[in-house]
Amino acid sequence: MNSSKEMMNSILILLLCVLLSSTSHASSITRQNFCKADLNRPNTPSGYQCLPSDTVTAADFKYSFNGKPGIPLPSKTLAFPATVLQLPILNGLGISVSLGEIEEGGFVPVHDHDADEIVMVLKGQLDVGILTPLKSYCNTLIPGESMVVPKGLLHYLINSGPGKAVFLAPFSNPNPVFRFLYEELFANDVPSRILSQVSFLDKPQVRKNKARFNGTG
Amino acid sequence: MNSSKEMMNSILILLLCVLLSSTSHASSITRQNFCKADLNRPNTPSGYQCLPSDTVTAADFKYSFNGKPGIPLPSKTLAFPATVLQLPILNGLGISVSLGEIEEGGFVPVHDHDADEIVMVLKGQLDVGILTPLKSYCNTLIPGESMVVPKGLLHYLINSGPGKAVFLAPFSNPNPVFRFLYEELFANDVPSRILSQVSFLDKPQVRKNKARFNGTG
Amino acid sequence: MNSSKEMMNSILILLLCVLLSSTSHASSITRQNFCKADLNRPNTPSGYQCLPSDTVTAADFKYSFNGKPGIPLPSKTLAFPATVLQLPILNGLGISVSLGEIEEGGFVPVHDHDADEIVMVLKGQLDVGILTPLKSYCNTLIPGESMVVPKGLLHYLINSGPGKAVFLAPFSNPNPVFRFLYEELFANDVPSRILSQVSFLDKPQVRKNKARFNGTG
Amino acid sequence: MNSSKEMMNSILILLLCVLLSSTSHASSITRQNFCKADLNRPNTPSGYQCLPSDTVTAADFKYSFNGKPGIPLPSKTLAFPATVLQLPILNGLGISVSLGEIEEGGFVPVHDHDADEIVMVLKGQLDVGILTPLKSYCNTLIPGESMVVPKGLLHYLINSGPGKAVFLAPFSNPNPVFRFLYEELFANDVPSRILSQVSFLDKPQVRKNKARFNGTG
Amino acid sequence: MNSSKEMMNSILILLLCVLLSSTSHASSITRQNFCKADLNRPNTPSGYQCLPSDTVTAADFKYSFNGKPGIPLPSKTLAFPATVLQLPILNGLGISVSLGEIEEGGFVPVHDHDADEIVMVLKGQLDVGILTPLKSYCNTLIPGESMVVPKGLLHYLINSGPGKAVFLAPFSNPNPVFRFLYEELFANDVPSRILSQVSFLDKPQVRKNKARFNGTG
Amino acid sequence: MNSSKEMMNSILILLLCVLLSSTSHASSITRQNFCKADLNRPNTPSGYQCLPSDTVTAADFKYSFNGKPGIPLPSKTLAFPATVLQLPILNGLGISVSLGEIEEGGFVPVHDHDADEIVMVLKGQLDVGILTPLKSYCNTLIPGESMVVPKGLLHYLINSGPGKAVFLAPFSNPNPVFRFLYEELFANDVPSRILSQVSFLDKPQVRKNKARFNGTG
Repeated sequence: MNSSKEMMNSILILLLCVLLSSTSHASSITRQNFCKADLNRPNTPSGYQCLPSDTVTAADFKYSFNGKPGIPLPSKTLAFPATVLQLPILNGLGISVSLGEIEEGGFVPVHDHDADEIVMVLKGQLDVGILTPLKSYCNTLIPGESMVVPKGLLHYLINSGPGKAVFLAPFSNPNPVFRFLYEELFANDVPSRILSQVSFLDKPQVRKNKARFNGTG
Repeated sequence: MNSSKEMMNSILILLLCVLLSSTSHASSITRQNFCKADLNRPNTPSGYQCLPSDTVTAADFKYSFNGKPGIPLPSKTLAFPATVLQLPILNGLGISVSLGEIEEGGFVPVHDHDADEIVMVLKGQLDVGILTPLKSYCNTLIPGESMVVPKGLLHYLINSGPGKAVFLAPFSNPNPVFRFLYEELFANDVPSRILSQVSFLDKPQVRKNKARFNGTG
Repeated sequence: MNSSKEMMNSILILLLCVLLSSTSHASSITRQNFCKADLNRPNTPSGYQCLPSDTVTAADFKYSFNGKPGIPLPSKTLAFPATVLQLPILNGLGISVSLGEIEEGGFVPVHDHDADEIVMVLKGQLDVGILTPLKSYCNTLIPGESMVVPKGLLHYLINSGPGKAVFLAPFSNPNPVFRFLYEELFANDVPSRILSQVSFLDKPQVRKNKARFNGTG
Repeated sequence: MNSSKEMMNSILILLLCVLLSSTSHASSITRQNFCKADLNRPNTPSGYQCLPSDTVTAADFKYSFNGKPGIPLPSKTLAFPATVLQLPILNGLGISVSLGEIEEGGFVPVHDHDADEIVMVLKGQLDVGILTPLKSYCNTLIPGESMVVPKGLLHYLINSGPGKAVFLAPFSNPNPVFRFLYEELFANDVPSRILSQVSFLDKPQVRKNKARFNGTG
Repeated sequence: MNSSKEMMNSILILLLCVLLSSTSHASSITRQNFCKADLNRPNTPSGYQCLPSDTVTAADFKYSFNGKPGIPLPSKTLAFPATVLQLPILNGLGISVSLGEIEEGGFVPVHDHDADEIVMVLKGQLDVGILTPLKSYCNTLIPGESMVVPKGLLHYLINSGPGKAVFLAPFSNPNPVFRFLYEELFANDVPSRILSQVSFLDKPQVRKNKARFNGTG
Repeated sequence: MNSSKEMMNSILILLLCVLLSSTSHASSITRQNFCKADLNRPNTPSGYQCLPSDTVTAADFKYSFNGKPGIPLPSKTLAFPATVLQLPILNGLGISVSLGEIEEGGFVPVHDHDADEIVMVLKGQLDVGILTPLKSYCNTLIPGESMVVPKGLLHYLINSGPGKAVFLAPFSNPNPVFRFLYEELFANDVPSRILSQVSFLDKPQVRKNKARFNGTG
C-alpha cells in the first residue's frame, strides 16, 4: 500500500515473530456458532436473545424424550415437543422436533403450523391426511415410512392399526406455532352466533363444541 | 497495482477520453429493477421466471379493480384479488392486494393465508375477528380504520352495518394462498366418517356441509 | 423404543387418563403468534423486542387514520403513516401502510423507500411516475386504480385532477425508510460546492434549495 | 368508489346472484401450496422448477426408507437420505431427513453440512461429538435421546454400544450439502505436497489417505 | 423397526459388505455447492438458472480486472464491475465487487444501490460522503482505510488527493442495482415541467441536465 | 371517506397551512438507516441490539487497517478482520471484510466460513484452492485478480510468489465464523483415539498435531 502502511507492516512482522514463537496458536478469529436462548429476556422477531456462549456445555445440545410427561391432546394422544422452549440451543436455528404417541383408536386432530413437517412413523400404523380445497392427500404409513406436510396446510393423523403408534415429526422452525382447529374455533370467546355464521356450522354444533372445549360466548 | 495494470490503465484513460467526448453518458451498469412473471413457464420456489425487462411498459405497473367481475364467496361477498396472477409485475416483490365488497348481511368466512394482512375499511362497517386458542381479537371498523391480521391466523369479516361494505386488504406476499376453512374441510374427498372424527364435528354436520360445498366421501 | 421408555410410557398413559378426565383440553403447545414492539427497548436488526404477548389486546390490532394530524410534506400533502412506530403490533411482520392526502395542485416529491409499495387511489386523480435511467413508467390513476412501485425506485405522485386526492399505500415492510430526494440532497450539512459537483446541479440551484430546506454548508 | 365503479357493482351483484344460486362454491382464489421439483430442468438458487401442481398425488408426499439400498460410508455405516433428490415434493421447503444405520464398531466420519441437524437415536447407543476450536461438545445418546448439531459445525457419530445403532436425522434444508472431511481432503486431485502444507498433516499421512480414498496428485 | 424392515436390513448388510470391499468410497451424498448462472435463460427472483455443475471449472471462480475496459462515468471515473453478469459463478451467492479508478479531480456521482457496500481505498485519497436527511456522514480515506455504505443510502466519492485514486468496493449482493441520481432524474423521458415540480429543481436546471445526459421531454 | 373524516380533514388543512408557512420541512417520516451494534448487550439471532442512531457519527462508518496488530495464524500470516466486532456499524448488514498479509513461504491453512468470500490479491502472488470431493478448483492470482469462494467450502491460500502477498477478502456476512481445520480438529479436547478413528488419521499424527496446537485428550 503506501508508506505509512509499509512502516506499519514492519512493526507487524516484528510482532508476528514474537507471537509465532509463543506456543498458543488458537486463533481468536473464531466466533459465534450458536445462540442459546435466554428465555427470561424479551423475545425478538428473529428469536430469543443469546446467553453468553461460554456458558454453553455439551448438555445444552442434548435432549431426552424419555421421562417427559407429554402434553395430552383430547384424542388419546401425547405430544412431546422439543422446541426452543424445551431445548434453548435451537434458538435461531431452522429446526425442531416433536415425538407423538397415539393410543389405539386415537388421533391427532386437524391442525396446521407455521413450519414444514415430516411425519416419520416409528411404531404402529398411521393414516395421515392433508386437506386442501377440492383435493386431499392421504397415505397410510408403517414404520420406516414418512409423509411430508408443507407449512400451513391442515392435516390430521389417525392411528389406524392395532396398538400404540409412535412417530417423530421434525419441523423447519425452532418455535413452530401449532394451531389445532378445535381450539382455534371453539376454545375461545367468540360468540356462538357469530362463529356459526362465519364457519357455516350449525349453532347447536358450535355450542356443543364450545362446551366441550371450554369456550365461552 | 502492478505494471501490466499500469499499461492497461493508460489504454483505459485513452478510451475514457474518447468515450467522455461522446454525448451519451447513460451508464450500462444499471440492472434488473423488477421481474415481470412469465406465467407460461414453470414456477420456482422464489416465484415465476422473468419476462425480458425491456418488454415491460408503464401499463404493466397499473391495475384497475374497476370493471373486474370479482370472485364470489358463498356469503354475499365478492373478492377482487390483485396478486401476481392478475398483476405479473408483482412477481418477486413482497406485496399484493385485494379489494373486497360485502353485501349487507354478508361476510368473509373463516380463513387464513400465508401472508400478513391489513384490512382497511373504505365504506360501511366491518367486524373483524382473529381466532386464537383461548382468546379472540375482534374489532369493529369504520372507514379510515384498519385491522392487522398476522400470517396464519384464522379470521373472519362480517358486514355489521347497513348497506354494502368495501375494504382493501394488502398482503405481505405477491402470491398469498387463501385457505377458506369451509373449503379445506368440506369441499374435498375426505370420507365424512374420518373428517368427523378428526374435526370433532358430528357426522350429520359434516355430511350437510359436504353436500353444500360439493365435497365427496 | 427401549425398556426405560416403556416404563415411562406406562406412567404417561396413567397421567393421560387423569388429564383427559379433566374438562380443560386447551393445549399449551400453542405459542407466539405476534410480537408487539416494545419501543422503549433497543431495536435489533430484525425489529423491536416483543412485549409479553398476554398484554396484547384486540385494540392493539386496530388503527384509525381518523383524527390523526398527518405529517405535512412541503407540497400540499399530508402523510398518515401506520408503521411499527404508530402500530407496534406490525413489528416483525412484512407489511405496513400509509394514507396520503394531496390538495389540488399538490404532489408527493421524488422519493424512494426500502419497501415495495402499491399506490391505490381512493379519491381524485393521481399521476404516478417511476424514474429509472433511460425510461420512466408513468400512469394516471383514478379511484379503483393502483400502481406498483418496486423497492428502491425513485417515484413521485402528482394530484392531476380537480379537488383533493386521497390514496392508500401499503408497504412490504413494517418500518419502511422513506427517502425524499429534497431532504437527502438539501436538508443536511454537505457543503454546497461538493454537493454541486457530485450531483451535476449548479451551485446557485444547490444554495437556493439548501436555504429552502434548512440545509447548511 | 366513483360512478363507473357503481355501475360495475350493479352488474357484479347481478352476477353474484346468478353464481350464488349455482351449487359450486369452491373458490378459485386458492393457489400454490407446494412445488414438486422437476429434476429434469435446470436448478435455481431457490430450488428446482416446479412440476404442474395438478399432477401431484398423495404418493408424492410419502417416502419409505424400507427396501432402499442406502449409501455406504467407509465406516460400517449406511446412509438413507430423503432429500429433494429422492423426495421431490421437499423442493422449496425448509426440511429433509436421513436415516442412518451404523454397524457395531462403526461410525459416521467427521463431516459438516449447510443445514442444522437433530440426531435422534432409535436403536443402540451413539456417541455424538461436535468439534469447535478449543472446545468439543460430546454426548452419549440412547433411544429417545437427541443431539442438536448447528449448521457448519464439524461432527462425528460413533456406535458406542453393542449391536447396530439406528438414527433419524432431520435437516433444516431440502437439499443439504454433506461434506465428509476425508472426501474433501483426500478424494480429490490436490497435490499431496500442497495438501500436507495447508493441513499441517505429514506427507506420508496425506499420501496414505489419498491412496485409500482414491485421491490423485 | 418392524419385520419387513429387519429383512431389508439383512439385505442391506450383505450389500454393505460387497460395497465396502470395493475401493471407491467417494460418497454420492455430496451435492450442489454453487450455481453458475446460465445468462441465456430467463432470470428468476432468486437469480439465474444454474448451468450443470459438472461443466464448472477452476477458471469459473477466477476474475481478472486487468485488461478490462471499464465503464466510464461522466466524471473522470472508470467502474470495473465483477457481478454475476461478468462472473456467473456469483449467481445465488451474497457478494460481488467492483473496482473503481478516479482520475485526479474526478468523482463518482451521487448514487445508491440495493446492496451494502464497503469502499476500500487502494491508492490515492478519497472523500466519501453518505447523505441522509439532516445529517451527512463524510470521511477522508487513504490506502488501508475503508468506509461502510449501508444499502439504499445516497453517497458520493471524490478524489480529494493528487493523482489517480483506486478503490475496491464489495457489495452484499451478486447483482446490485446501481442508481446514479443524474441518470434516474435526467436521462429519461419525464417531461421537464413535471420533473422540475416534483424535484424542487428549477426548470432551466432540469433542461440543462436533461440535455447533458440525453434525456428527453 | 365518511363525515367524521371530513371534519378531521378540515382541521388538517388548517394545520397544514400553519405548518407550511413555517420554514422547516424536514419530515419526521425518515427512519432507521443503520444499526450500530451494542456489543455490551446480548446478541440475537439476527445480530446485536442497536445503539441509539443519534449517537452514530461519521467516524463509525470508517475503518483503518493501518496500525492494527493483526491476528497471527501459525503459517506466517496475519489476518486483519473488519467484522461487526471491530466495526459495529456492520451490524445487521450483509457484508464485512478482512485484510490478509502472507509472508514469503507462508499460507492460510485449510478453513471454511459461513459466508461467501472473494479473495482479491493486492500484492504478490497467491495460489488459492477450493477443496470438494472428487474435484478441487485451484487458481494462481496476481494483483488485479480475484477468486470466488462459496460459503462452506474448504479452501486454502498459499503465497506462491517471492516477497509478501497481500489480499482483501470481503464476506457476505457481518460476523463470519472462520473455521480453521487445524483448530477444529486438534485444538480441542476430543480424545486422540476417537479423533483418529473418525478422521481416518493415524494416532501418532493426531497426537503430534494435538501437541502442536495445544489440544488435550
